Formats: sequence, structure tokens, C-alpha cells
Amino acid sequence: MSTSTESLFTSTPARTVKSWAAQSATSALAPFSIGRREPLPQDVVIDILYCGVCHSDLHQVRNEWHNSVYPVVPGHEIVGRVVKTGSDVTKFKAGDLAAVGCMVDSCRVCASCRRGLEQYCEKFPVLTYNGADKVLGGLTFGGYSESIVVDEAFTLKISDKLDLAATAPLLCAGITTYSPLRHWKVGPGQKVGIVGLGGLGHMGVKFARAFGAHVVLFTTSASKIDDGLRLGAHEVAVSKDAEQMKKHAGTLDFVLDAVSANHDINAYLRLLKLDGTLTLVGAPEAPLPVSAFDLILPRRSFAGSGIGGIAETQEMLDFCADHGIVSDIETIAIQQVNEAYDRLLKGDVRYRFVIDMASLKQ
Amino acid sequence: MSTSTESLFTSTPARTVKSWAAQSATSALAPFSIGRREPLPQDVVIDILYCGVCHSDLHQVRNEWHNSVYPVVPGHEIVGRVVKTGSDVTKFKAGDLAAVGCMVDSCRVCASCRRGLEQYCEKFPVLTYNGADKVLGGLTFGGYSESIVVDEAFTLKISDKLDLAATAPLLCAGITTYSPLRHWKVGPGQKVGIVGLGGLGHMGVKFARAFGAHVVLFTTSASKIDDGLRLGAHEVAVSKDAEQMKKHAGTLDFVLDAVSANHDINAYLRLLKLDGTLTLVGAPEAPLPVSAFDLILPRRSFAGSGIGGIAETQEMLDFCADHGIVSDIETIAIQQVNEAYDRLLKGDVRYRFVIDMASLKQ
Repeated sequence: MSTSTESLFTSTPARTVKSWAAQSATSALAPFSIGRREPLPQDVVIDILYCGVCHSDLHQVRNEWHNSVYPVVPGHEIVGRVVKTGSDVTKFKAGDLAAVGCMVDSCRVCASCRRGLEQYCEKFPVLTYNGADKVLGGLTFGGYSESIVVDEAFTLKISDKLDLAATAPLLCAGITTYSPLRHWKVGPGQKVGIVGLGGLGHMGVKFARAFGAHVVLFTTSASKIDDGLRLGAHEVAVSKDAEQMKKHAGTLDFVLDAVSANHDINAYLRLLKLDGTLTLVGAPEAPLPVSAFDLILPRRSFAGSGIGGIAETQEMLDFCADHGIVSDIETIAIQQVNEAYDRLLKGDVRYRFVIDMASLKQ
Repeated sequence: MSTSTESLFTSTPARTVKSWAAQSATSALAPFSIGRREPLPQDVVIDILYCGVCHSDLHQVRNEWHNSVYPVVPGHEIVGRVVKTGSDVTKFKAGDLAAVGCMVDSCRVCASCRRGLEQYCEKFPVLTYNGADKVLGGLTFGGYSESIVVDEAFTLKISDKLDLAATAPLLCAGITTYSPLRHWKVGPGQKVGIVGLGGLGHMGVKFARAFGAHVVLFTTSASKIDDGLRLGAHEVAVSKDAEQMKKHAGTLDFVLDAVSANHDINAYLRLLKLDGTLTLVGAPEAPLPVSAFDLILPRRSFAGSGIGGIAETQEMLDFCADHGIVSDIETIAIQQVNEAYDRLLKGDVRYRFVIDMASLKQ
């Protein structure tokens, strides 16, 4: 992300708040002070209650996507309570619950933004962290912090019916799986595969089931079979077993691939029937070799999808409130976050770490 | 292709006809005698007048797809004249023009066949050559031969308004490009890229233009710019020039990739706008490495497509007759076919060799 975007309001005063940041690709996360702007007329000031730990936090802290600018304050699965609003804010008032996902702004005028697809903004959206802060200048800082100030247009409403901590991961893991399942019209009468049972995959299973599809979970780990069924899969296939893969070959309408490690994508393309689509939502570091014949015979598509727009994120949160869907989480204190990253790398979390931000105030 | 399919009519008498065949992956094509069945009630006997030379003929003669069974008599771009018909044939009579493409049969009962997508037959279609001959047993033999006997359900009608030799390549190069351009609804108001100006690519340019799209041809060779424009492209971009590629980045609705050599697919994925699709119709031997981020931001699809069904092939031939579309060809004698293969490998043909089968009778 470039930091060259000139600040629009360089004189805006900033308030200092506590956060945890990485100072380099090889440093552990540690306490750090950051500035948050005083609210502009359209801004909402949110005291952060919970923040999810996404695999992309780890990718960016360690500069694995080669575009990190330090210090990095990660965190884009944010839920909290509104403590103050700007004079023009209409959707929120102090005391309301509120949430922030992966973006805090976009150009708002390009074709994508006008269609409500801010995540595909032609100028690239302003990411919640490691983006170019249009107001204060410098970098945006994410949710591993006491509070955040966000334009109400990029602030989401959340229900008080759901567990707040378990709601946080909906802001990235939730919308990243909800959006492609909706875009490719997954529903009743379809057989749908979810590849990988992690933070994203376990939400994919829940949504695909809620949308009425017959859900087959593909996992490398036989130890996840019971959990897969509990989370809503009708069937679980262990992908290392060639017989189990063969059984499903050519039978799936849609596959959501939520694996961010390198893996054999052709093995999953071959599961698709004619005109089926495999959509990648994980982002493996190395290119994935695709065999031409696995796309050609029969006609198949290999697609990608990134998070979701603001309107669709709100739709997803409302759907979750209506259907009692949240993430399966393990709550941690901010002081445990480095250890949590190590466990995340080993796949040792079922299925999302969420930081209780009360720990930051200690 | 397996040759184990048992013959259904092992006692069907066969007539011996002249052909040219490869006896191994390293042999040149040479004269060879093959059997053609006496017509069954639904069969059409066609004297072959012209047969196109497809790059897949060369792939299979040299066993580059690792599934060739010898002898291989290639040829699946066949036009000729009906000389005899079985008692149940209704669409053809002796003296009619007729054509045969890549398939001579399929299971006819699976979901794909019932949808008119015989090319995606779940039992795999019977290919015109190097397939399992259901009637005589052994292998099917293609169009580098005097005559062929085909079920009328897999025989196409062709117009006498078009040049017959130049019609032959429509049976593979034509339908292979027509079908994906129709399936992905290419038309007015769209900007469409065609990658590679060869046998397939030059038909892609003609069809995309005829369908009303703004056509951009991408070629590695600056020497093809004039030809690209003559064939119907509105613009030609030399793909080795980074500036020209950058100019089109993120602007195309659809890309038809007709390159069968290995190439950087990500460079072409990056040409697509949000929700654009790149469809591969060439079949490079090695897997193509795909970068996840080029599919995810923005949401894009990488698809494949193989030939077309029988009904769509007839639709394409009728469209060509109505719009005066044929292939740009160089006619050769069968005795020049080995030399033609060498020239094909060097890209030295504009844009399809067609064998004048009168030469076989000499």
C-alpha cells in the first residue's frame, strides 16, 4: 500500500490511543501508541470491544504479501460501542453497537463503488489497516487498538441478539464466504463443496447449509470430520483419500476454496460438473498451476472473490442475526496474540481467535 | 482413449479406403488402408473433398496428450459430398454437401447429451479419430481419408454459398471459438480480447467482430498487426510490449485465449474488468500458474471451453453462411502434410492448412 496519499486534513487533531503493533516483518506484536482523529461530521467514534484475528493479519505483519508498511496495527474484524458521533451522522448514536470490516473508505464514484462493490473500487479501497489514511496522512491502523474513528458509510450495524465476540469474525471471514456463495447463487438443489475447515471454511459450511445446499466439506484432516458435520456439512471427504475424491468427481455445482496454503487446485476443479465454478477466497502465496484440460472438459470456471461490499456486509450481518449464525471462536487477551499467531500457523484454532479488547486497558 | 470398447456389430462388413496415418509418435504420416463400415440405417456415407489440419492433429500424431493409440488417421474438419445414405436417413440424400467435426457419436442419454452438449458427454463423446469405434471395434479414423461413414445425427449440413475448402476449418476452429463467445454472451457494448492469431484466434476475431463487440487482438508478433485489422480487430496490441498491455489492463469484458503454447496467463487475467472471464480454448501441455490475487481483485473468472454441441455447430455453420464467414486458408495436397506440420509448429500458416483430398486419389 502506498503512503504517499496526501492528507486531506493535515491539521485535524489526533487523540492518542493504545494499540499493539508490529514494527517490522520479524518483530513480535507489542504495545504502541497511535493517533485517532477527532470525529469529522460524518464520523463515528467506536470503543473496540472485540477484534478477530484473521490469517491476513499474520500475512501482513510478516510482510508475506510484500506490501506491508510499518508499523502495522492489524485487525479488521472489529465490533464495539459508539461513544461519540459527528454532527452529520444519522445511522448511529452514542451507546449503539457498531462494527468495522476490512475497509474504511473508497473513492465512492467509480463504477464499482456506485454498484456497492467498494471492495473492488477502481482506485482500491482504503483498507482498515496498512492503507493510506486520507485524513491524518500516513497509515491506517486497525482494530488491535482501544478505539477507531470511521465514516458512518463504512460502519455496520450489528444485532444485540448475537454473542458479540463471536460476531467479530463475520466482518471478514463471514462476508468473504457469504459474498461468493450469494454471487454464484448457491441454494437448494445444489451440491456444494467447501475446501478447508478454518476461519473462512467453517463460515462457508454454515452459510452454504443455511442457503439450502447439500454441503460437502473437504478437509485434509480426518480429525475434523465430526466438527464438519456438527457445523452443518452433510458429508465430509478427507481430501488425501483418492477414493473419497473420486466419489465426488464431476458432481459439484460450486466449490468454495478457503485454503490459503499452497494446494493442488486441479484436484478440486475435477470435482465440478459442467458449468460449475470453483471460487478461491484464500490467497496462497505461490501461483497455482492449472491444467487446461481440467477447465475445458467439461466447461468449468476457476474464479476469485474478495470480501464483500458495505451493503452486502450489512445484509450478511442481518442474515446472521435472523438465523443465529456466528463464528466458532476462542477468546484471547491481547497479551496472547503472538502465541495465537504461532498456533494459527499450525491450524491450532477452532476456528477463530478473537481478542477481548478489555485486556488492552489493563 | 481406450480401445477396449467392444464392437456392437463386429460382423458389419467393412470397405477398404485410402488414408494417411501415423504408425507411431515418431513416424511421419504415410499412406495406409483403413476399413469403413457399410452404412447402417441411420448412416451417411461421405466422400471427403477437403479436410482441415488442426493443431490437435499434430498433438495426437506425436502423442503430446499422452493418449494416442496407433495407427492415428487424423482429421476432424471434414467437408464432402454424400454418396449413399442408410434407409432411415432423413436429413441427407446422395449429392448433398455434408460436414463432420470432432465427434461422430456420444452416449445420447446423459444430462449433457440431452442438453445438446454432446462434447461434454458424461461417458465422453466418440471422437472422430483416435476414439473407440462402437460399430467396427478398434479405433475411429479421421478425415485424412477418402471417405467416412457417420450417423446423420452427427453429420452437419453446409451451404453451397461458401468456399468449400475454407469451410472445413469451421468444424473445429470455428465452433471452438463460436461456442464460448456465444456462451459468455459477447456482443455490442463489450470490449473483447482475442489472444493469439492462429487457426482458432483468427476465427475468434471474425466471430467477435460479427457479434458486435469492440475487438482487441493480442499477438506476440508485430508482423500480424495488419492482418489482425484486416480480419476484423478494431485494435491490435503486441503482448510483448508492457505499455500496450497496461493500456488495456482492467478494461476487457471477456478474453478468448486461443494459444496452445505455454504462456503467462496472469498477464491476460489482468486485462479483465470486474466479473470478466478469460476462456481458454487452446490446450497448453504444461499447467498454467495462476496468481490468486489476479482472480480475487477484482472478482474474475478463468474458464475453459471445448468445441461445441451438434446443434450449436449447425447454428454456427448457418451463421457463417448468412454472414459470409469462412476461414483464411492455404490449400495443400495430402503429400505435403508432413511439411505442413513442420510449418504449423513454426506458426508459418495464415491461418489454416486444408488438404484437398482429390490429391489422395492420385
